[in-house]
Amino acid sequence: MSSEEKQLKPGDTIGILGGGQLGRMIAAAAMRLGLKVHIFCPDADSPAFECCSFKTVADYEDMEALHRFAQSVSVVTYEFENVPGETATFLEEHCIVRPGPLALTVSQDRLTEKTFLREKAGVEVAGYYAVENQGDLATGLSLFDGMGVLKTRRFGYDGKGQVMIRTEEVAETALEAIGDQPAILEALVPFEKEISVIVARGVDGDIRCYDPADNHHQNHILKTSSVPAEIPREVATAALEIAAQIVAALEYVGVMGVEMFAVPNAEESYDLVVNEIAPRVHNSGHWTQDACPVSQFEQHVRAIAGWPLGNPGRTSDVVMENLIGHDVDAWQEILHEPNARLTLYGKTETRDGRKMGHVNRLLPLGA
Amino acid sequence: MSSEEKQLKPGDTIGILGGGQLGRMIAAAAMRLGLKVHIFCPDADSPAFECCSFKTVADYEDMEALHRFAQSVSVVTYEFENVPGETATFLEEHCIVRPGPLALTVSQDRLTEKTFLREKAGVEVAGYYAVENQGDLATGLSLFDGMGVLKTRRFGYDGKGQVMIRTEEVAETALEAIGDQPAILEALVPFEKEISVIVARGVDGDIRCYDPADNHHQNHILKTSSVPAEIPREVATAALEIAAQIVAALEYVGVMGVEMFAVPNAEESYDLVVNEIAPRVHNSGHWTQDACPVSQFEQHVRAIAGWPLGNPGRTSDVVMENLIGHDVDAWQEILHEPNARLTLYGKTETRDGRKMGHVNRLLPLGA
Repeated sequence: MSSEEKQLKPGDTIGILGGGQLGRMIAAAAMRLGLKVHIFCPDADSPAFECCSFKTVADYEDMEALHRFAQSVSVVTYEFENVPGETATFLEEHCIVRPGPLALTVSQDRLTEKTFLREKAGVEVAGYYAVENQGDLATGLSLFDGMGVLKTRRFGYDGKGQVMIRTEEVAETALEAIGDQPAILEALVPFEKEISVIVARGVDGDIRCYDPADNHHQNHILKTSSVPAEIPREVATAALEIAAQIVAALEYVGVMGVEMFAVPNAEESYDLVVNEIAPRVHNSGHWTQDACPVSQFEQHVRAIAGWPLGNPGRTSDVVMENLIGHDVDAWQEILHEPNARLTLYGKTETRDGRKMGHVNRLLPLGA
Repeated sequence: MSSEEKQLKPGDTIGILGGGQLGRMIAAAAMRLGLKVHIFCPDADSPAFECCSFKTVADYEDMEALHRFAQSVSVVTYEFENVPGETATFLEEHCIVRPGPLALTVSQDRLTEKTFLREKAGVEVAGYYAVENQGDLATGLSLFDGMGVLKTRRFGYDGKGQVMIRTEEVAETALEAIGDQPAILEALVPFEKEISVIVARGVDGDIRCYDPADNHHQNHILKTSSVPAEIPREVATAALEIAAQIVAALEYVGVMGVEMFAVPNAEESYDLVVNEIAPRVHNSGHWTQDACPVSQFEQHVRAIAGWPLGNPGRTSDVVMENLIGHDVDAWQEILHEPNARLTLYGKTETRDGRKMGHVNRLLPLGA
């Protein structure tokens, strides 16, 4: 069996880079399946350290620690896409990393990502133009009717590192506002809503998608994901096909979140434009924990373990609500709700904008 | 707020005596709710140590270790009923223990248990007679038509420490066969099946029951629990009432398993006779993990944390199968079943008769 197809056994250890709530929930799913978990994270106070057999507190660039980590596990995965390049390269030389290097390369850079999605995966993305300087920006804006969103190519999240440009005044200071970094100008997409699809691909190429979710944001942070999404059936089918095309093109192994814009079209339906991909379990898939036989976390574990993917079917309608900052103070009221399922991440300090937990409110199918 | 009503907050720590699969699954449920877990167990290789924030490897009689343990947690619970008396007494003096001392006292001794159930809880039990010597045994047998099951009063499980007596020859050696310990003779109950009810009681006296399960054993070890049980509706209602009566009589806090015999009666229905109670989460309740919004493990955590009890409603029909010994070798085939949900306990060595995991097979409600 080649390393591409390697299968773990119960009792083997998966390594996770990153110790946040995503790592914690992957770890819990792995443990349920009899796997051990080794968490690698620089922050000793990380939520995932409370649910693992082994832990390493070290910087991601600490090659000695990484070497010991790689030796101690059967496969490495990650809960965030901004794994430093040299860390990823080092690990790939010393152990199996799933998802593989291409997924990180593609998703760490918005320009590479857009280009891959359009050219290799063959899916629709917003118009885009690479921006290194003011001249590029002017050219890009001229292509998109003088408007667009300027985004850093790397390390943006939750609306950070981006500027909406609708006027010349804003255009003049936009590059400075994002720190004069390599950037990408994206054409404005006249979308009505954002949906996302959680998709998984196994080592055998098997692909399974969860139903699309309707996502709503507050202050650029995901607030709720509702399933089923309010979209026509053929749009839902198209969304799943797009997600499947992307993981197939990447020869991906693991769970991925694919965000899409739904743009009203002349047929009173929607066209879909891929916004971005996340090569990991995804906040907009937390509803799968309580509304599906196999959650996105178990699905990810199955995929990276080389095991058969699970049933992504849905057993309830559901609204997932993120508990952000002091939203979490309502934990006790939520425990009183008969159809609410609470997850708290065990973070010691409540801060504005910090994701502290989430709640899945379940409804009968088709209610 | 008195210590009887104490409520934990997210971030507080629950202590669990015992590090087996039950402790592991309680710990996972606690972690999901943002609680920390401290496992206390003499065996360093215990499954629950892989899912906790703090661990103590020490004997249950190590008073120094127990003292540190008690200081480090907000409440102590246990995953097995045979907590040594002096351990329980010491902990009760130094911290809150839930379920409280009466539940342990009653459930550790079959004679005390039977007497409590009949006299205080007012529920039906098999006829019984205390046996200290051969004379007592002879008297007991004369009351029960010369037949019965002789059981040690303490430390019996999975059919260990008991002898079925149907002949005088067996009667003569029975006491010796169970090690000449204080015993109880139980009249034979002409039952057709065994059912069990998982019941929870909160600090506020709220009581919630899960649906009864039909239990099947192999070699005296639970093999499957099927829900719904095949019993008339009024028998199911009676079973829940019996379970509720017991936890009310004990002023119990936590989850309890109540095993009952269903004895055919003249009305083509069943009379119920309580076989035994377990003051803890129970193997016959593992189906709640996948077929209920709130599992018995989360329910137990909610109860001992002083939190509102959750919804015990059932969302699927289900058959739970224990994976005993090498049954677990089928893990990969089980992962291929679309409606099977696998749990493995992370035990390193597969031994005959050892519970290695379980699988819940889900079916639509009423299928």
